[in-house]
Amino acid sequence: MTDDVRLDLSRHRRLGIAEAILAEPKSTAQLTTALEHATVNDRSMLLTRLSPDQLASLPDATRGLIEYDELSRTGFFGPVVAPTGSPRVAVITAGTSDRAVASEAERTLAFAGHHCLSMSDIGVAGLWRLTERLDELSPMAVVVVVAGMDGALPTVVAGLVPGVIIAVPTSVGYGVARDGETALRSSLASCAPGLVVVNIDNGYGAACAAMRVLNSGSSAGSSATMSASDERGRLG
Amino acid sequence: MTDDVRLDLSRHRRLGIAEAILAEPKSTAQLTTALEHATVNDRSMLLTRLSPDQLASLPDATRGLIEYDELSRTGFFGPVVAPTGSPRVAVITAGTSDRAVASEAERTLAFAGHHCLSMSDIGVAGLWRLTERLDELSPMAVVVVVAGMDGALPTVVAGLVPGVIIAVPTSVGYGVARDGETALRSSLASCAPGLVVVNIDNGYGAACAAMRVLNSGSSAGSSATMSASDERGRLG
Amino acid sequence: MTDDVRLDLSRHRRLGIAEAILAEPKSTAQLTTALEHATVNDRSMLLTRLSPDQLASLPDATRGLIEYDELSRTGFFGPVVAPTGSPRVAVITAGTSDRAVASEAERTLAFAGHHCLSMSDIGVAGLWRLTERLDELSPMAVVVVVAGMDGALPTVVAGLVPGVIIAVPTSVGYGVARDGETALRSSLASCAPGLVVVNIDNGYGAACAAMRVLNSGSSAGSSATMSASDERGRLG
Amino acid sequence: MTDDVRLDLSRHRRLGIAEAILAEPKSTAQLTTALEHATVNDRSMLLTRLSPDQLASLPDATRGLIEYDELSRTGFFGPVVAPTGSPRVAVITAGTSDRAVASEAERTLAFAGHHCLSMSDIGVAGLWRLTERLDELSPMAVVVVVAGMDGALPTVVAGLVPGVIIAVPTSVGYGVARDGETALRSSLASCAPGLVVVNIDNGYGAACAAMRVLNSGSSAGSSATMSASDERGRLG
Amino acid sequence: MTDDVRLDLSRHRRLGIAEAILAEPKSTAQLTTALEHATVNDRSMLLTRLSPDQLASLPDATRGLIEYDELSRTGFFGPVVAPTGSPRVAVITAGTSDRAVASEAERTLAFAGHHCLSMSDIGVAGLWRLTERLDELSPMAVVVVVAGMDGALPTVVAGLVPGVIIAVPTSVGYGVARDGETALRSSLASCAPGLVVVNIDNGYGAACAAMRVLNSGSSAGSSATMSASDERGRLG
Amino acid sequence: MTDDVRLDLSRHRRLGIAEAILAEPKSTAQLTTALEHATVNDRSMLLTRLSPDQLASLPDATRGLIEYDELSRTGFFGPVVAPTGSPRVAVITAGTSDRAVASEAERTLAFAGHHCLSMSDIGVAGLWRLTERLDELSPMAVVVVVAGMDGALPTVVAGLVPGVIIAVPTSVGYGVARDGETALRSSLASCAPGLVVVNIDNGYGAACAAMRVLNSGSSAGSSATMSASDERGRLG
Amino acid sequence: MTDDVRLDLSRHRRLGIAEAILAEPKSTAQLTTALEHATVNDRSMLLTRLSPDQLASLPDATRGLIEYDELSRTGFFGPVVAPTGSPRVAVITAGTSDRAVASEAERTLAFAGHHCLSMSDIGVAGLWRLTERLDELSPMAVVVVVAGMDGALPTVVAGLVPGVIIAVPTSVGYGVARDGETALRSSLASCAPGLVVVNIDNGYGAACAAMRVLNSGSSAGSSATMSASDERGRLG
Amino acid sequence: MTDDVRLDLSRHRRLGIAEAILAEPKSTAQLTTALEHATVNDRSMLLTRLSPDQLASLPDATRGLIEYDELSRTGFFGPVVAPTGSPRVAVITAGTSDRAVASEAERTLAFAGHHCLSMSDIGVAGLWRLTERLDELSPMAVVVVVAGMDGALPTVVAGLVPGVIIAVPTSVGYGVARDGETALRSSLASCAPGLVVVNIDNGYGAACAAMRVLNSGSSAGSSATMSASDERGRLG
Repeated sequence: MTDDVRLDLSRHRRLGIAEAILAEPKSTAQLTTALEHATVNDRSMLLTRLSPDQLASLPDATRGLIEYDELSRTGFFGPVVAPTGSPRVAVITAGTSDRAVASEAERTLAFAGHHCLSMSDIGVAGLWRLTERLDELSPMAVVVVVAGMDGALPTVVAGLVPGVIIAVPTSVGYGVARDGETALRSSLASCAPGLVVVNIDNGYGAACAAMRVLNSGSSAGSSATMSASDERGRLG
Repeated sequence: MTDDVRLDLSRHRRLGIAEAILAEPKSTAQLTTALEHATVNDRSMLLTRLSPDQLASLPDATRGLIEYDELSRTGFFGPVVAPTGSPRVAVITAGTSDRAVASEAERTLAFAGHHCLSMSDIGVAGLWRLTERLDELSPMAVVVVVAGMDGALPTVVAGLVPGVIIAVPTSVGYGVARDGETALRSSLASCAPGLVVVNIDNGYGAACAAMRVLNSGSSAGSSATMSASDERGRLG
Repeated sequence: MTDDVRLDLSRHRRLGIAEAILAEPKSTAQLTTALEHATVNDRSMLLTRLSPDQLASLPDATRGLIEYDELSRTGFFGPVVAPTGSPRVAVITAGTSDRAVASEAERTLAFAGHHCLSMSDIGVAGLWRLTERLDELSPMAVVVVVAGMDGALPTVVAGLVPGVIIAVPTSVGYGVARDGETALRSSLASCAPGLVVVNIDNGYGAACAAMRVLNSGSSAGSSATMSASDERGRLG
Repeated sequence: MTDDVRLDLSRHRRLGIAEAILAEPKSTAQLTTALEHATVNDRSMLLTRLSPDQLASLPDATRGLIEYDELSRTGFFGPVVAPTGSPRVAVITAGTSDRAVASEAERTLAFAGHHCLSMSDIGVAGLWRLTERLDELSPMAVVVVVAGMDGALPTVVAGLVPGVIIAVPTSVGYGVARDGETALRSSLASCAPGLVVVNIDNGYGAACAAMRVLNSGSSAGSSATMSASDERGRLG
Repeated sequence: MTDDVRLDLSRHRRLGIAEAILAEPKSTAQLTTALEHATVNDRSMLLTRLSPDQLASLPDATRGLIEYDELSRTGFFGPVVAPTGSPRVAVITAGTSDRAVASEAERTLAFAGHHCLSMSDIGVAGLWRLTERLDELSPMAVVVVVAGMDGALPTVVAGLVPGVIIAVPTSVGYGVARDGETALRSSLASCAPGLVVVNIDNGYGAACAAMRVLNSGSSAGSSATMSASDERGRLG
Repeated sequence: MTDDVRLDLSRHRRLGIAEAILAEPKSTAQLTTALEHATVNDRSMLLTRLSPDQLASLPDATRGLIEYDELSRTGFFGPVVAPTGSPRVAVITAGTSDRAVASEAERTLAFAGHHCLSMSDIGVAGLWRLTERLDELSPMAVVVVVAGMDGALPTVVAGLVPGVIIAVPTSVGYGVARDGETALRSSLASCAPGLVVVNIDNGYGAACAAMRVLNSGSSAGSSATMSASDERGRLG
Repeated sequence: MTDDVRLDLSRHRRLGIAEAILAEPKSTAQLTTALEHATVNDRSMLLTRLSPDQLASLPDATRGLIEYDELSRTGFFGPVVAPTGSPRVAVITAGTSDRAVASEAERTLAFAGHHCLSMSDIGVAGLWRLTERLDELSPMAVVVVVAGMDGALPTVVAGLVPGVIIAVPTSVGYGVARDGETALRSSLASCAPGLVVVNIDNGYGAACAAMRVLNSGSSAGSSATMSASDERGRLG
Repeated sequence: MTDDVRLDLSRHRRLGIAEAILAEPKSTAQLTTALEHATVNDRSMLLTRLSPDQLASLPDATRGLIEYDELSRTGFFGPVVAPTGSPRVAVITAGTSDRAVASEAERTLAFAGHHCLSMSDIGVAGLWRLTERLDELSPMAVVVVVAGMDGALPTVVAGLVPGVIIAVPTSVGYGVARDGETALRSSLASCAPGLVVVNIDNGYGAACAAMRVLNSGSSAGSSATMSASDERGRLG
């Protein structure tokens, strides 16, 4: 079974973002193998969409090395990067129910050493909840906007805040919300300029995109960037 | 061909709303027949989705009796009801491109003798355009909100204005806007309480719904309402 | 966790409709926090889509303050508005199985002090069940029509009754009923004039829309309406 | 190019229904070839979905043998079966715009020698138009109900009339009507018992189904039915 | 709760088909009430989509009056009509897994006193299984063809057998079979003439349609048919 | 504009299949540039989905070098491979209208020097048209089955013929045929074992797949196959 | 119940592929009957999509004859064909989570006596994992590529490897992955020439298609192929 | 008509991005009005999705002020920002046919004074075309990847290049490509970390997002950013 897993250990060198393990569709055996590979290669590892039941099924020794957060269903295997500086990323939600996805984004950022500013339950049905906090959002390099149902919040934010706005549609809602499909399409069809979108419930992906922005902004990908020639050689 | 058309002449008596003719899918012969029926029964008639080509194809005498508006593609056949009182319905659009659908609603109201307040191009990408006019919208019994693309405006309005808010999604947009489907679903999944929705591009239907509100508010459907016992007899 | 919840306490002042708590996607901790906020602010609160399991998971003291109805899955937290006058809203269903959604609408109205007229199982497969009760429906300001499967009842009612007709599609049915999508689309494409529609299974939303109609009808939004200038200031 | 066409000449013997030519997707050359085959085999032929442009493109001699009807876009090539007896099939439409599809059904029946009863524009928005004609519909063996938009009429008819009810959804409508998809799904999800459905705009198919009913009813498929043993031999 | 249920007791008189109870979406209380109504009115009743758990939840006395079949999930409450004559309807399946839906059709027919011919597992992947039994199928007035996955069998049968062919798509399959949607659409788009279709998994509806055919064939709806004038009076 | 085009000249060496030009979405300038590249590199080129209008818009000199076939909308630019041996691939269609797509497959094969066996109009509504030709189909290494509407033919063929069966759904049909989507899904959900599928109307792709089969069969990809090590070097 | 099952015992003779039992939608009784038929006819049998619960529900004697593999959910009932020669088929996956579907393909091949080359977790997010193994893939007659989520791997492989490339989309992923629909459509729309596709999660079908390729390559279907004339006779 | 247009003149101050005019759904009168507003306010204006016919319909004086590019369908009304520095954004396409959308992105960047690096026709079917240019892509702050059909290129790039990767799905393709829907969903479901996506064919939006990245990177939104307090006041 060991052969089922092949970690992409050069990902951080290539992209400035380490590989993470999407736990949900994996068996206990597959998860265990992946973490053994990480141990052997002396890597810390982020686990996403890890259910409490999956966590409980892992061998005691392995489970003991995982710092788990139930709301976000994420686990930190091994030490994380120490955070530095003040937050340049905000993670905000339309409703309380969107917190789980937002916290996946926050945990992904934390694992890589990034602080973030967090705000909840500021959906457009009560617009004052957003406008009273615009002063905090406007200086941010990135605002991750997590919203289900109608998905109107990302558009409103993208019309008011100049940073990179990343919409994360969530599967919160019922009926025509269709597991996030409506929020997704609403953000993609936004009338606000330059709003970008990731998959439904993909807090992890939004955080990775935020890190790409942060990496690109500082010094044009120098430290995080692989030497392309190098990698090209490796591809061959 | 005459037998193809049967006007619902008792509709106004039953519902307080006269029948209108959806012209788009009809042949010239069918339109002509319908207008002959109206003439014989001494009725004025609203035509919707009437293309300039269809208009041109009608016999001269018939065409001369139609007051046509190209933007809304509506025609008034015969005299209209004289307007009275100050507007209790507003019709507003997210973008300039939504004007055609909005004007179908406005013309439907005008045909029945209702003034309305009209505002354009106040979409949420520039939120100030909406908020600076809230004073005008708040006293309205009904606000018809016409919006394509993301369909975020109806939700924002429904969170700020207490009247009956009717969303009319439009087919304006491209890609995932999918001919209005996204705007429709976004409004249906709205987080704002009590937003109601009609079919895509259905300015006519929104105006009819507004008239039902106006009728119900004045004196509980008394004048516009048929005697149900009466009608029940007729059904038999 | 307290920061996850921010009640929109000015909603009733703005819209004439108080905020409610959509319980379904919320954790016990989030529900508890929300109800604490309500207590602190001395508000009653309507809870919707609250499962028996969620109810059972709440602290005893909190649970004791909730008047729960299992069919509608709604809870009243705190005292409700005393009803006055005779019903101006009817809530009717096509089939017995649509009762759960209908009762969500009825409970939402009851929480705000509105009586309603209730009728069940009068779908169009046996049309006499509807026609024999038209006398009761025709004077209503609003008729909420709850129907799954083919969704034909709202169209038939909207052709016979002059009030505001609000279709609530339900997820009752199987196969092509597709969790209410067919009933939804059928009502939106209705050939009857002025039928309006809310989200699938959204009895709460239909009731809110009905209250907007009642509020708009009496005295043009005066008491329920915020001063827009006031609110505009607050938005800033 | 002749090899592109292979008529199913034994179809009438097998099924009691002759093959017809779906003209729409065919080139002039392919149509000409098919009609030559018919001539050689001494068969009359029904052409469906034949556009005026296609008709005009045919060789003069061929075109002269076609009795064309523009509304239904059908052509009779060669003599038709003489009608006998009183109508046992009714073809009815919800709106005037559904006439084109209804007339395809009527022409298909006429080509095979069947009279039918035709009614138009009796949709449920004005229910009295249907109920006043129930006496004529109830004795029919088959009622073909042609309806677009919401597709509510077939359900209402199937709740009132005991014959075989065949719904033909049409592409009439706009927005969520989605080219007949909504009418189709509404009829399939019908709460009325035993309603059957054919493809959108498929008047031809509905007529064929009606003929299967008529054939099965008279004397259990005796004259129209092939000897199955016979055919089985042919299949091998 | 009693008021939630209103049986359509005149259905058999109108349509020749008695009302049945779709049990699946109903609560125990609602089922019990419905059966009490039946008892009071001295009617037998067919229950469809009745789960073993629902059956077990009924009061002992009620449950004892139900003859239950687990494969079809149907129950007979009260005596059934005694069967007469030889079968004029066949019910056939493409695969063994389609048996549950087929047996719903067979039980519906049996409840009304109709024998039927039953064949299983004769899908087109092994075409000989169908062709060797054509002699039995060809004399049938109606063939109900139950098939999931690709839904090819109804088309093949409709090309070989002259009776009324009713396709019942089933939700058997996975992936693109999409809970029967593919089988449904394939049958609706059939190249075979006159194939009619009912909702996915709707064995009950197919049986009702078959009974409409049988009723129409014998003596033009005379005994089963209401007097339309009569009923029209009742509608009023 | 020249920089818009970069031919994949090593494709034949890598895959045994030369690059072709999908003309449809390209401008005249882009087509001209591509053919200039081909000339410079001394390559023949297959053009697919090339409309007569596009052909006419090309410079005379270029157009003169193209052997064009209107039915398939394909062009041969430069000399083709001379055919050898007897056909090992059959291309068959359900209906005459599917010929255009079938001929795209045949022309793609011809361009690469492969004969094929061609049969038309043998759809399952008249099953004898298929069964009488099974002797010819059974020895084929590959059978490309082109079918629109219900898409039943590929399944029936895959149950009778042992070769590689490639379904090509076509956009022939109307209503629920939905531009080939139904035929596509029906073939993917097939109950026959090992049926493979390509995109709707993709005769070109089916022919390429057939060539992969032929190449793999002869001598395990030796002549057509690149040296993988070689190519790996090139990737780097 | 025995009559519910009819094995297609001549399938191997016709197609070179034996019938298998899709266990998932079958009851214990139906599975038992099918295996009894196999025993009586002295056939081994492959069971697919057989859950551990289904296995456990079988009679002890039957269960004892099944060699079960939990990851692939397949069972071998009776002896399998002994493998010979070196692998000519590779089965590769984009991610570890795709292993279950891949192993269904591998087990299907193993049951019929085919070795295969297996590779896992070589998705395009870390492209080097694929390119470093191209030397092994290039000589293969068939490469089965199993991938969920974006479904990009089959396209990349089909651009690099000359054999027959069969994409098996999997339901791995969340949100817009929509149970494999996105991976499916991406492979069907591939820009790489000659990629063929099977149903979502259909490892069994991909293996059958691979066997058709292997059979066709060796000696043009001679040994595996029925005599078509023979079979034609049988069809009759 | 003038009242139909209300420019969002403070957008650049708020967001660092000036408003543009989506020309496609606008009438000549509406376009003319919008450009008059721009003239009065002394603004340059970008027009997108402006057809040659629309351009030709404008008054001569207006048309003369527009620098038009046909491939991208964009117009520059008034002077543009002078470009400075070396490119930090790359715009690349999978195929030649994706150039139109790519050039909309390039023109949007050029209008705002940003150079960009442009590459075409480097889709994954010939992977070497991408890998040989990785050295140029890796230092980029943003890579806009324009791709239709399968949409595999953005995923492959996002696995190799560390900058912000913005996928622009295009409507290039046919059949299951479904006007860009498949490319869109494939990019959203990407297995590569941090890929972000905009609407189908939305080159303009991708360029705006790129500008947000560039703005955020330099000095945290200082110059381009409004004072949020300021704007908040204006919202009120």
